[in-house]
Amino acid sequence: MTTLLLKNVRPMAGEIRDVTIVDGLFADGPAPEGAAEIDGGGAILIPGLVEAHTHLDKSLLGLPWYRNEVGARLIDKITNERENKERLGIEPARQSERQAIQSVAKGSTHIRSHVDVDTHHGLKGIEGVMATRDRLKDLVTIELVAFPQSGMMIRPGTAELMDQAMALGCEVVGGLDPCGIDRDPKGHLDTIFGLAERYGRPVDIHLHERDALGAFSMELIIERTEALGMQGHVTVSHAFCLGQTDRTVAAGLTEALARAGVHIVTTAPAAVPVPAVRELISAGVAVGAGSDGIRDTWGPFGNADMLERAMFIALKNNFRRDDEVEMALSVCTTGGAAVMELEGYGLGTGDKADAVLIEGETIAEAVANRAPRRLVLKGGRVVAENGVCVVEAP
Amino acid sequence: MTTLLLKNVRPMAGEIRDVTIVDGLFADGPAPEGAAEIDGGGAILIPGLVEAHTHLDKSLLGLPWYRNEVGARLIDKITNERENKERLGIEPARQSERQAIQSVAKGSTHIRSHVDVDTHHGLKGIEGVMATRDRLKDLVTIELVAFPQSGMMIRPGTAELMDQAMALGCEVVGGLDPCGIDRDPKGHLDTIFGLAERYGRPVDIHLHERDALGAFSMELIIERTEALGMQGHVTVSHAFCLGQTDRTVAAGLTEALARAGVHIVTTAPAAVPVPAVRELISAGVAVGAGSDGIRDTWGPFGNADMLERAMFIALKNNFRRDDEVEMALSVCTTGGAAVMELEGYGLGTGDKADAVLIEGETIAEAVANRAPRRLVLKGGRVVAENGVCVVEAP
Repeated sequence: MTTLLLKNVRPMAGEIRDVTIVDGLFADGPAPEGAAEIDGGGAILIPGLVEAHTHLDKSLLGLPWYRNEVGARLIDKITNERENKERLGIEPARQSERQAIQSVAKGSTHIRSHVDVDTHHGLKGIEGVMATRDRLKDLVTIELVAFPQSGMMIRPGTAELMDQAMALGCEVVGGLDPCGIDRDPKGHLDTIFGLAERYGRPVDIHLHERDALGAFSMELIIERTEALGMQGHVTVSHAFCLGQTDRTVAAGLTEALARAGVHIVTTAPAAVPVPAVRELISAGVAVGAGSDGIRDTWGPFGNADMLERAMFIALKNNFRRDDEVEMALSVCTTGGAAVMELEGYGLGTGDKADAVLIEGETIAEAVANRAPRRLVLKGGRVVAENGVCVVEAP
Repeated sequence: MTTLLLKNVRPMAGEIRDVTIVDGLFADGPAPEGAAEIDGGGAILIPGLVEAHTHLDKSLLGLPWYRNEVGARLIDKITNERENKERLGIEPARQSERQAIQSVAKGSTHIRSHVDVDTHHGLKGIEGVMATRDRLKDLVTIELVAFPQSGMMIRPGTAELMDQAMALGCEVVGGLDPCGIDRDPKGHLDTIFGLAERYGRPVDIHLHERDALGAFSMELIIERTEALGMQGHVTVSHAFCLGQTDRTVAAGLTEALARAGVHIVTTAPAAVPVPAVRELISAGVAVGAGSDGIRDTWGPFGNADMLERAMFIALKNNFRRDDEVEMALSVCTTGGAAVMELEGYGLGTGDKADAVLIEGETIAEAVANRAPRRLVLKGGRVVAENGVCVVEAP
């Protein structure tokens, strides 16, 4: 059933009206004779939430509580995870299905997932998440980023596995701290941009490096984006260097990102400096958001709720006004859609009926309350109701 | 009913056992004949959550959505609130009762509330929150801080109202940014410490001032605390200056706070530098936490859930390990209790049976999940069950 009359909804918190969906697309005019009807009860209709940065392959959802005693450095978390994955029963297919179903319940219709590729586990993560991607394709769009979590230049054999992951059908080439982790920025970036060129795929790079170091890596990324004509197809995730105290440098980088069409994805972590969302959007940079890891060996928090992520973005950016909270939510909808280069995303006629009904008088109230999602549609099909996905998690 | 056998609970996530409460206090040995029994279902028993910094008089809970279009400066928010309070129907007695009941439902057994005192509204806020304090005294302990939100030295007549508020029975003398808002640090601090001396009451000062300015005000507060022998009875709320980048200055202040027995209360806001919880606790400073304003004209967020606040503290301090998350929760229990100078607080024999049953295998899981509280006890009396307070909000 992908033809539907959705009655009494308020698109983007506007006037109440009926919305017609024909063959999975938003349509003009009245619904066809005999179309199914759903009463939206005056809830707010927004396009599907976009989870633009997560790690479906490594959540501990549904497993016994993991007592975290991991060290403070990034490399401690990476090593601990790689070495304990099997012992803890982190089976990528099952765990990614669990998290993806939770995402659907919370209203996400699109997920970009980084998936670990390393010489210890090979392509097991990729194969597992691909199985979930295919199994859940009518519920949620899942895009895989081949992600060298343990480093690539520092672990011989990883680049070849990255190549195989792309050949298998990963949608995006991932990268990670070309200096901080991989110790060879030129080698790292030449390799992943080389793969991007070879497979005609976009790039999405985790960049935790701060201050001048992150700025240097970002410059190298921008240079390659422009040299290869990849404007619009490159994303920098985290980008903590944009939160540096030297605002002149941050402003210069922001301008360069806009010129090169490089996107930014933020998870708005409270503990570290982050890109300023308003400044990036004002400069014309597309900004998406994600949950990052959810209840994994890195940390206990996260629940795949992109309305909660909008709240975190608002809190981190000190957004209090309604228009500011609306901007935070837009990062989790249209911003993420731009990052993922989604076609037919939105509430316009002809757009895909990937949408969510959220409860509130206004968008800011819906973000503040985060009530269970009344309805989630994927291609006009009901995939979750009252906070529960139509498919049960394994 | 304040004599009770609480069966199958895990105090502080330890071994499962039965807990006896006699006449509202935790007791040793078996329950008296005929005592009522409640099955805790293996949930974790912790002492009652302590909401050590909020503003009961000004929440918009239960009122129509307030479209926030307020300016970015602190003074914009102060002025906007003072001038629109009546128009918006922010009636202190009703609004404080609404928020306090929500707090009880979420497991708070003690609340320290700052309450506005100004020449526009006089003592209306104080009288309203006092009415709630008295009405709900069997459900939750509410302590009032007379709080010169609009400034005191800059608004003649306010100091006299502060004096009247203390005479009426406020438990704590409040202060606010001696430099940043009140423009006269000596005048401001002499006045509020004078009131504290006169009424034999503790002091709790909002200090948003950053960097060197906040450090200067904090030094003045420490000097007065020591000069007046008020060690253990002075709290600095927010204390953003401790989050300054010059760690030497922050460490020096921390040492001085510990020496003077000055407490810190944090709300762990994501957007601004904050005191480092671990460093303060290590130095011997009592650290409590609070929700700050909840859904008010300052901002749309907040829900009075101190387990959520523990998560915010963890996120802000980059606490990921279980022992770190336990530290974050301790700020919302024993830390707040130290700030409020509560007697008989805890789970020991003879302590008041103010306690909460939270769901989880471990404390970290309970903080990460934040499921509705299974049971909340105040003096051994059930005041909330399964997330619902026994009293309905007005």
